[in-house]
Amino acid sequence: MIRLTVTAQEGHARCGILHTRAGVIDTPAFMPVGTQASVKSLTPAEVRETGAQIILNNAYHLYLRPGVELVERLGGLHRFQAWEGGILTDSGGYQIFSLASLHRVTEEGLTFRSHIDGSEHFMSPEKAVDVQQRLGADIIMSFDQPIPWGATRAQTIEATERTHRWAKRGRDAWNPETGQALFGIVQGGFEEDLRRASAEELVAMDFPGYSIGGLSVGEPKDVMWAMLDVTTPLLPADKPRYLMGVGTPTDLVRGVLQGVDMFDCVLPTRMGRNGTAFTWEGRLNLRNARFETDPEPLDPRCPCAVCRTFSRAYLRHLLKAGEILAIRSVSYHNLAFYQQVMHAMRQQIVAGTLAAWAEAFLTDYRNM
Amino acid sequence: MIRLTVTAQEGHARCGILHTRAGVIDTPAFMPVGTQASVKSLTPAEVRETGAQIILNNAYHLYLRPGVELVERLGGLHRFQAWEGGILTDSGGYQIFSLASLHRVTEEGLTFRSHIDGSEHFMSPEKAVDVQQRLGADIIMSFDQPIPWGATRAQTIEATERTHRWAKRGRDAWNPETGQALFGIVQGGFEEDLRRASAEELVAMDFPGYSIGGLSVGEPKDVMWAMLDVTTPLLPADKPRYLMGVGTPTDLVRGVLQGVDMFDCVLPTRMGRNGTAFTWEGRLNLRNARFETDPEPLDPRCPCAVCRTFSRAYLRHLLKAGEILAIRSVSYHNLAFYQQVMHAMRQQIVAGTLAAWAEAFLTDYRNM
Repeated sequence: MIRLTVTAQEGHARCGILHTRAGVIDTPAFMPVGTQASVKSLTPAEVRETGAQIILNNAYHLYLRPGVELVERLGGLHRFQAWEGGILTDSGGYQIFSLASLHRVTEEGLTFRSHIDGSEHFMSPEKAVDVQQRLGADIIMSFDQPIPWGATRAQTIEATERTHRWAKRGRDAWNPETGQALFGIVQGGFEEDLRRASAEELVAMDFPGYSIGGLSVGEPKDVMWAMLDVTTPLLPADKPRYLMGVGTPTDLVRGVLQGVDMFDCVLPTRMGRNGTAFTWEGRLNLRNARFETDPEPLDPRCPCAVCRTFSRAYLRHLLKAGEILAIRSVSYHNLAFYQQVMHAMRQQIVAGTLAAWAEAFLTDYRNM
Repeated sequence: MIRLTVTAQEGHARCGILHTRAGVIDTPAFMPVGTQASVKSLTPAEVRETGAQIILNNAYHLYLRPGVELVERLGGLHRFQAWEGGILTDSGGYQIFSLASLHRVTEEGLTFRSHIDGSEHFMSPEKAVDVQQRLGADIIMSFDQPIPWGATRAQTIEATERTHRWAKRGRDAWNPETGQALFGIVQGGFEEDLRRASAEELVAMDFPGYSIGGLSVGEPKDVMWAMLDVTTPLLPADKPRYLMGVGTPTDLVRGVLQGVDMFDCVLPTRMGRNGTAFTWEGRLNLRNARFETDPEPLDPRCPCAVCRTFSRAYLRHLLKAGEILAIRSVSYHNLAFYQQVMHAMRQQIVAGTLAAWAEAFLTDYRNM
């Protein structure tokens, strides 16, 4: 169903091959986010060109629109969006808490109103697994209760323990024979002992892989790294580890150094729509007047199609003129850049030189 | 500089090769519109893939933003937007009348305020030619005074005669040694005798090509065809004829039957952004509920990349979800469809079967 072959290790960092029913994925891997079955502004062929082998879709969004029945009828998520690589879906818990309105939390599940039309829905751990299996994702997530930064210890304990019970219920509802791999999600808020307990509890349930949830939700970066630091050593070495919703290029590097295998984040496409490009020297905002006549590509070191074709001056013009091609181009470049960073790290781990490379990267990389 | 080789003729319709400084263009040709140096939502490579050999840019828009100096500095329009095919610019007269505010018409030229920032500008026939030559277009337009549908005969005469004087001034200002071809624009409003007089006046000035302006501005279709009918027979057989701003697929067919060689229109991209696809059977609006579960491509007879990849159901989902990929996909398909119509007509003229083909097309093609 899913199997991680670790091919090289340096410190906590691992390079490997994740075997999935949709093919192999080189790890550490970055997954572009295709919230509504589309990585915003790009075609599946372009997403593949950037180097992505697996993307993330949001079960919450797809459950509401176009609906599970329609996706099933059109042959499942791969065929629906014409994506031949891997697909991971999140379970929807995070989206229900952050996007939906009037939600009600009970032991049974979550009652919420659609952010699209206000219609009322109910989602349980069992239903979340069923929805994701029917959508046809290759890797699916347990249904969890997110814990906001600032929650009390009592609130954190309550939500984390419910997350464990929900993980168990989802695991029982899961049909492994489809080859779809179910990941458990570690919670525990921002308390080291609760994080540890959550990891141990989930590992005892023996999931095919483990997600680290509830981070990058507003807490200081050092708190996030401290939480990750107590979590990853407790996760099985032979199972993939996925740090949900993270992050910036420097976050990816720090995460890999701490033993993370998989990442997803909307940042490269969201920043792309805003005209901010990621480069080997840091962020570059095309709205900055100093790019007005700049004939250079977004990143002179980047071999992507956008950097081979367009100047900063042209892209800046498109952005100011409100042209979609600006959004497409910067989104494409940013995803290509993210994949280049992942590729570089995989190579460095194999060569045993990641530590030095990461130090140089974290020094050179800055906001411009 | 520019030379039309007519390779086949059937009735008034002609098939040919237009030799330009940017290479050859098969005629009759449809030119996608890249108003602000970008065919909306598409890359130059995609525009080329659809079959386009020449695009239209708007001198008015580019003069205001990013400005002539910047485009020159970045190597001219071809290099700026990374388009290797032909480029035609319109002179800006139409845009100044339709978009700019507080314009003042004098014999010298037009004073207007930018629709972007309200700044005041002056454009003369000489300056319009200079701007287009500096932008680096391969085919440029005389500066004309558009005549609205509903203008009086006196107004029509005044504007048409000024257009002739401006055409002469532009011709005198033009530097033919760059290889950039200047077209005269026939006006004459909606009066047959004035149309004839305008065509004769401009032909006497001996331009490399002739545009038919002032049509498709709100008049009934039969009036438009009547105006075209009196104009094209007066234009030299060995010079290209360009019907500005036209039109729908059926307009293209009727225009070719009347001897037009070149067309441009925002319709395929504008309708694409709106979710309306052109097909061999007519228009198809993806918002229509009957496409909700439709696994067929936009047009089962279309070989374009979008029709090979996505279903109507998926594209409808993207459109409803506000995803840019919907806009891109329908725009791309529409431009590919337009080029397929032009290609078919060129083949039919060579085979001497255009009349029958056109009759069948005009019968089958309908709004869906």
